[in-house]
Amino acid sequence: MLDLCLWYPNRHKPIMASICPFVKGTSISNANYTMSQPENTSNLAEEEGGTTLSKKAAKKEAIKQEKLKRQQEAAAAAAALAAASIEADPLSENYGEVALPDLQSKAVSGRKWTEVGLVNESLKDKTVLVRGRIQTTRPVGKNIGFLVLREKGFTLQCVLTVADNLVSRQMVKFATSLSKESHVDIEGIVSVPDAPIKGATQQVELQVRKIYGISKALPTLPINIDDAARSEVDIEKALQGGEQLVRVNQDTRLNFRVLDLRTPANQGIFRIQCQVENIFRQFLLSEGFVGIHTPKLIAGSSEGGASVFRLDYKGRPACLAQSPQLHKQMAICGDLGRVFEIGPVFRAEDSFTHRHLCEFTGLDAEMEIKEHYSEVMDVVDRLFVAMFDSLNENCKKELEAIGKQYPFEPLKYLRKTLRLTFEEGVQMLKEAGVEVDPLGDLNTEVERKLGKLVLEKYGTEFYILHRYPLAVRPFYTMPAYDNPAYSNSFDVFIRGEEIISGAQRVHVPELLSTRAEGLGIDLKSIETYIDAFRYGAPPHGGFGVGLERVVMLFCALNNIRKTSLFPRDPQRITP
Amino acid sequence: MLDLCLWYPNRHKPIMASICPFVKGTSISNANYTMSQPENTSNLAEEEGGTTLSKKAAKKEAIKQEKLKRQQEAAAAAAALAAASIEADPLSENYGEVALPDLQSKAVSGRKWTEVGLVNESLKDKTVLVRGRIQTTRPVGKNIGFLVLREKGFTLQCVLTVADNLVSRQMVKFATSLSKESHVDIEGIVSVPDAPIKGATQQVELQVRKIYGISKALPTLPINIDDAARSEVDIEKALQGGEQLVRVNQDTRLNFRVLDLRTPANQGIFRIQCQVENIFRQFLLSEGFVGIHTPKLIAGSSEGGASVFRLDYKGRPACLAQSPQLHKQMAICGDLGRVFEIGPVFRAEDSFTHRHLCEFTGLDAEMEIKEHYSEVMDVVDRLFVAMFDSLNENCKKELEAIGKQYPFEPLKYLRKTLRLTFEEGVQMLKEAGVEVDPLGDLNTEVERKLGKLVLEKYGTEFYILHRYPLAVRPFYTMPAYDNPAYSNSFDVFIRGEEIISGAQRVHVPELLSTRAEGLGIDLKSIETYIDAFRYGAPPHGGFGVGLERVVMLFCALNNIRKTSLFPRDPQRITP
Repeated sequence: MLDLCLWYPNRHKPIMASICPFVKGTSISNANYTMSQPENTSNLAEEEGGTTLSKKAAKKEAIKQEKLKRQQEAAAAAAALAAASIEADPLSENYGEVALPDLQSKAVSGRKWTEVGLVNESLKDKTVLVRGRIQTTRPVGKNIGFLVLREKGFTLQCVLTVADNLVSRQMVKFATSLSKESHVDIEGIVSVPDAPIKGATQQVELQVRKIYGISKALPTLPINIDDAARSEVDIEKALQGGEQLVRVNQDTRLNFRVLDLRTPANQGIFRIQCQVENIFRQFLLSEGFVGIHTPKLIAGSSEGGASVFRLDYKGRPACLAQSPQLHKQMAICGDLGRVFEIGPVFRAEDSFTHRHLCEFTGLDAEMEIKEHYSEVMDVVDRLFVAMFDSLNENCKKELEAIGKQYPFEPLKYLRKTLRLTFEEGVQMLKEAGVEVDPLGDLNTEVERKLGKLVLEKYGTEFYILHRYPLAVRPFYTMPAYDNPAYSNSFDVFIRGEEIISGAQRVHVPELLSTRAEGLGIDLKSIETYIDAFRYGAPPHGGFGVGLERVVMLFCALNNIRKTSLFPRDPQRITP
Repeated sequence: MLDLCLWYPNRHKPIMASICPFVKGTSISNANYTMSQPENTSNLAEEEGGTTLSKKAAKKEAIKQEKLKRQQEAAAAAAALAAASIEADPLSENYGEVALPDLQSKAVSGRKWTEVGLVNESLKDKTVLVRGRIQTTRPVGKNIGFLVLREKGFTLQCVLTVADNLVSRQMVKFATSLSKESHVDIEGIVSVPDAPIKGATQQVELQVRKIYGISKALPTLPINIDDAARSEVDIEKALQGGEQLVRVNQDTRLNFRVLDLRTPANQGIFRIQCQVENIFRQFLLSEGFVGIHTPKLIAGSSEGGASVFRLDYKGRPACLAQSPQLHKQMAICGDLGRVFEIGPVFRAEDSFTHRHLCEFTGLDAEMEIKEHYSEVMDVVDRLFVAMFDSLNENCKKELEAIGKQYPFEPLKYLRKTLRLTFEEGVQMLKEAGVEVDPLGDLNTEVERKLGKLVLEKYGTEFYILHRYPLAVRPFYTMPAYDNPAYSNSFDVFIRGEEIISGAQRVHVPELLSTRAEGLGIDLKSIETYIDAFRYGAPPHGGFGVGLERVVMLFCALNNIRKTSLFPRDPQRITP
């Protein structure tokens, strides 16, 4: 292994001036934290309350940060003086802050970094080089220092013990003064302690020989990762013991999303999300579907009616697609046979609930059918059973990390997905004393109730409800063959909440025009769409799913903002 | 096998009324076709010319279609009379038009359809059921009829021969009167003829026993698929023989995209496109990248300066993301380590060229780096070599179909991708007599020239040019360690055209602010972005590719509109 020092020759002077601002052990009671309201709710009023509170909090925080910055500058000047003593350390080459230009792709050293998650007993007595973030630091007197290094959710305890020609007091001071969340490179020797290590995932220690700061975090962070990673259960438990732990509310998390994303639960959530998408793709590809991309910029308003984001397109009125519906059907008319699309979907609706976003990721599929919309339900059935199986099988660590902060029961689902007709659902509700309009839609509350009834009767939290009343479905939905009050459509539910809508579509242009006109849609605005069916269009159907909802409901999370990387809702367009 | 008739009991009356509008052998000289200008050019003026011409043409076509519709209605009335004679046919159950409600998911019959591409000698003497489009029909006298059925690019010759109790004259007439591009279900017996079949991909014939129209195409189509599938080479060859064949121009194709998509070349192009995306995903997943989705709705203007689509977001100014640049970097600050995104990218630029679109699919990646931006170039290198290998290996049929209409030479690339510095590139140009500003950007023409020089000298059409002048790169590009006039950035070229841009990014917030300010960017508008680097940010880099450009250049196509399903350019926002 090459000597680290050789690679950071510009390290000395600039580093020393910047060490001191890292104030050890900063632990603040932050205005962004609220003790008063439980975070684990999805109630509208509370969510709005959270927003108001945190806007104020964010302002306060900004002022605080500004103040801190000034303090840091003053501290930096003072540090220049202190640097002198470190300069005198004969081991000073073995530690310090690395500055530009040493981080500007100066050279390729050939050094090998070991991932923190791979540092284990097999490397005992070996020298390894790791890069990670400082999770915590703890000096023990002047001669010993501990720090926990984190990389990709794995943590490693690193130890500095003063010893001749290896570790100096100044080095211990430098290491234990590093601010939380800063990146460091550490070279050290792997040792195996007698007792198990509680504060880290890796059951070995690293005896530090060299330590270099790669990137500094502000000494005071708007969110501490420990606080953001805390479960509601732990907060409640501590409260019973008389201790009030910090609770970070949802809005504060989103304001400082890059910090919030570092919690084990969030690392798990976004890896699960990626996996859901992978399985969606791989399953459909294996069934002969072709992945496509349809335009998000649409002339007029896609699907008519509902709220769309409008914009000017080179002098012409345009809008953002509310779904790839019309274009994926046109791809079917273009003989692609079976298609799917994964892409953003835009809804300008003013729904400020736990399950609506103004921008989300749509998973859409459309396919030729031979006879019956059950062919589409068959695909949905097999796809989602395969997906749930795969998540449970291959994402154990991620699910565990999520469950640790947000405890949940594994989803109950059947090998062959239950299918009920809308009429059967209405009947089940009726028998349970819930009267609903047999030709109307079900509201969220009734859907939840039906979900409970289905779980009790059939033992599943995943089921299909089909043959919806025609009146509550879009114009392109094929009416039922035997009763025009019903349609060849379906919704799919997870834990009592709708996640998928699907249907056979109208492929006969005359009927399509009649249906659209009947619903007051300007035919001129969907002319090219209807024309697409005049050149021979096969019977077809499809479905659409919200990626964020699948992840939210599979993990029984209480808010869709938890499963969107940078969520957009009626009140939020940053960060 | 169940009897087809059982499944379409509502077939009789409504069918007969609608058979006659299918006028046999319609073949028009269409105003949408232009004989005057070669389609195979990428010149600006010609493209614009094409647009103007085809708008007129589209209007003419609309009038014509309207007229045809009226003619059809009249014909339908006359047909009712003619129906009587077919009713008298004792075999009338074996053919006819299937109408609603028989196509409204009436029942699941359990019948099995065989894909046209799978009908071969192994099924000799077997009865099969197929669904496809009528490609051509040809009556031979009154007793024999041929038709070619097409499904997913595969074609099958079907034969009707009048025989007692099997095929009637009326049935032959019905079958050969079906309009091109209509869907039909055919049940028949597979036979193997003595001579090879020239007009179809499948080397067997189907002896038709039953034939039902499933969906009707207009008798006169705005584009004939044969015309749309014709190669420039064939048009030229015919012209030399004194025959003027129809040439469908690019704009007409896009106006009637659902027809244009049915050509073998287009079927190939969009399957290749899907495959490029698959390989991009699979390769990066295998290297520890996580797929993410960043918001397309952005407060202010993403990346500052250039032309963005602006819109109103709940009373606040917003725009569509020009790239996922800022958010993918924030995902890195959120500890996702290595991320990629596949999603739409919006550019409001007025570039009306062969290689620009207002909306395209971006393939983006971002990753932590340890030391050098060459780590990013290593990923690009291995990813694209793997991609080209896989396309050549696994997409032979698709590439052949594309090459048949648009002949091209396979891409020349090396096992280990060539890397040249910008300075070396400038030197090569200089030696070839092309003087360029050593600290400026290269224009498209010069890039082409350099591509030729590289091909001559190194035998590759795929190479990386790195260490670009800093002045021509965005503010977030890391300057070179040794010379602030250069940057840690690169572009990648295929066949002399740029397809990828990448770089190490500035991860130090102070430098980032200075760079942005220096380029006149309002720091307020990118505040949350810059703040993301204050909580500890690892050195990182990444790259972005346009999906449509990769496909266009791999297949040496002349226009990016050929590789976008429903392209958006400054003049086009439909269909």
